[in-house]
Amino acid sequence: MTEAVYFDNNGTTALDSRVLEAMLPYMTAQPGNATSRHVFGRTARQAIERAREQVADATGAHPSQVIFTGSGTESDNMAIYGITAKNGHQKIAISAIEHPAVTRAAQALKCAGVKTETIAVDANSFVEQSALEELLAKNKLADAIGLISVMLANNETGVIQDIAKLAEIAKSQKAFIHTDAVQALGKMKVDFADLNVHAMSVSSHKINGPQGAGALILDKRVDIQPLLYGGGQEKGLRSGSENLAAIVGFGAACELVSRELIQRVGNVRQLRDKLEVGLKQLGAVIFGNQAERLANTSFFAFPNIEGETLVMALDRKGFAVASGSACSSDSTEPSHVLMAMGIDEDLARGSVRVSLANNNTSQQIEDFLLVLENELSRLRRLTAIAV
Amino acid sequence: MTEAVYFDNNGTTALDSRVLEAMLPYMTAQPGNATSRHVFGRTARQAIERAREQVADATGAHPSQVIFTGSGTESDNMAIYGITAKNGHQKIAISAIEHPAVTRAAQALKCAGVKTETIAVDANSFVEQSALEELLAKNKLADAIGLISVMLANNETGVIQDIAKLAEIAKSQKAFIHTDAVQALGKMKVDFADLNVHAMSVSSHKINGPQGAGALILDKRVDIQPLLYGGGQEKGLRSGSENLAAIVGFGAACELVSRELIQRVGNVRQLRDKLEVGLKQLGAVIFGNQAERLANTSFFAFPNIEGETLVMALDRKGFAVASGSACSSDSTEPSHVLMAMGIDEDLARGSVRVSLANNNTSQQIEDFLLVLENELSRLRRLTAIAV
Repeated sequence: MTEAVYFDNNGTTALDSRVLEAMLPYMTAQPGNATSRHVFGRTARQAIERAREQVADATGAHPSQVIFTGSGTESDNMAIYGITAKNGHQKIAISAIEHPAVTRAAQALKCAGVKTETIAVDANSFVEQSALEELLAKNKLADAIGLISVMLANNETGVIQDIAKLAEIAKSQKAFIHTDAVQALGKMKVDFADLNVHAMSVSSHKINGPQGAGALILDKRVDIQPLLYGGGQEKGLRSGSENLAAIVGFGAACELVSRELIQRVGNVRQLRDKLEVGLKQLGAVIFGNQAERLANTSFFAFPNIEGETLVMALDRKGFAVASGSACSSDSTEPSHVLMAMGIDEDLARGSVRVSLANNNTSQQIEDFLLVLENELSRLRRLTAIAV
Repeated sequence: MTEAVYFDNNGTTALDSRVLEAMLPYMTAQPGNATSRHVFGRTARQAIERAREQVADATGAHPSQVIFTGSGTESDNMAIYGITAKNGHQKIAISAIEHPAVTRAAQALKCAGVKTETIAVDANSFVEQSALEELLAKNKLADAIGLISVMLANNETGVIQDIAKLAEIAKSQKAFIHTDAVQALGKMKVDFADLNVHAMSVSSHKINGPQGAGALILDKRVDIQPLLYGGGQEKGLRSGSENLAAIVGFGAACELVSRELIQRVGNVRQLRDKLEVGLKQLGAVIFGNQAERLANTSFFAFPNIEGETLVMALDRKGFAVASGSACSSDSTEPSHVLMAMGIDEDLARGSVRVSLANNNTSQQIEDFLLVLENELSRLRRLTAIAV
């Protein structure tokens, strides 16, 4: 593989070696289909139920509230489509900074006649209570909003929302509320009960677990329509043979989060703060830093330096960072998050994201800042010549 | 894990150690999100495109026709929902012996006003051409049938359909045709081009690949609506971060199928035939054995012996077999496949499935037949006392 330094942990994370160790017995011995009644099936079932407890522990949920899915995207789609369809909602509201797994799932509902309202964010990508209250008031007389979705922590800025407060407002208006906690889990305390939402999405591969596992945590009083039909797994809510090794790995990764969260957050916060001192000295504008943010995320831009160009220059020098959202880097549009924050489009096109993990080091930050300084000088000289 | 003998390979298969070896580099080193533009992302992208070629090679498809999904169930759901919704079909037809991933996906379309017609099977679970022709003729004047789905090989009986012939009939009536080839791949030659269908589902964990990967092979002239929306992966048809290690494993498993299919089929056919000689001597009725079947599958019953009871007795003696369909063993209904074949309900409740793989041995078959003989005697004695 490669020796480059990986600073794109909001995109995907490395599998923790302890998680791999937990998974390997299920990848080397004969696995069972967890619906089978023989000993292999029962062994698989036990492993899945243990993982369900581990996921529940790490998310402040009850095991019976955990529905295993194949990904965070699937969890988001299931929440948006499943709750809306089952409850006959005609209107939903999502924040302006949601992940495409929420925004595009909402857009897809247009065909079924479901309208989507957008909840505005402030200049730090924070959703003010008043923004939700005003939107709900505006829609009170016409079709009421049935479902609200606001992400717990944003994948680009890392800004954390006051979901418990928004949930209170939603519930006072008899609306359901879902939160996409895919970026939050493993980087801050995530507690389903405290957040007081009806549904919450989480994903394994963002917390040093394997790809291919996610969960929708669901208040059992909420009726939901499945996305996937078939063998009736997950109490009929998510069909398909359970991905045994991935679910076991997701559980193990959750257990590590439960044990190590405080230490991990402390580590990455120190690295991120060191990084941002250096970034500011080099003239960076840091987005969302007036709000509470995830400790591992820094989203920034240098005026007159194109983000894509900088990402590619850094890549050549052995540092992997993202421009805009890692999940849609194919896109050439400026970040919709920065647009919603009212950031100037030229500056937004300069955006670069560094997202750290526990295995990053202080030395890597120092090396990165040196390389960045050189690349910025080089790019500025090139720009000066071009002008 | 357990030392029991595993005879439930149509349920799920063991991960081939060579497949695990191919996956491990992607589970031990830092993986990239395949949409990212840095070196980790590019490495992931290359690995996925290589796997796409391996899957295409094993299925007689072009790489551009391969859409990676999370499972066979997802592929089936995507075909049934996606083709019907996108093309505005009002009526579809599925065979009476489809997997729940097809039948329940079709049932779910009822809410959207889409009717499902059932294509009858004969006493061997074979779909006669005339059955499809008659159904199409009957529906010609009213709403025409837009989509037909018939599985290539049945998971319970192993019976193989003449899909190419059914595709010819479907196309002559301007209907789309999908085939669920999840059980067929790895156990018989599967060639998308020869089968002449519009869409075909396959799954990794049925061919000694990892769980968590599947594919829908799709004729690119067919418009389809996604099931999962988000980051726009798989050309916008299936969003969600690609499950890199699982896709790599699926590719490796496909390459092994391409290389070893003939030898594997020869091996399991010999074992299955030996098993069935013994089963007949013990008085078994073997289902579907007048039709062409998968070489690894034997589906049988002993009159007056309850299938569940026999499965549990064999489990205690160290043999893992399935009763009815492994994917819905929670159910207590008699197999819908046997019901469609017109099998007596009492006999159907006795059904047991042995599904072999290349790692099973002649000795295991001999041991199994001995144990079975003893258990049958014991159960018959118990029945005699109870009466």
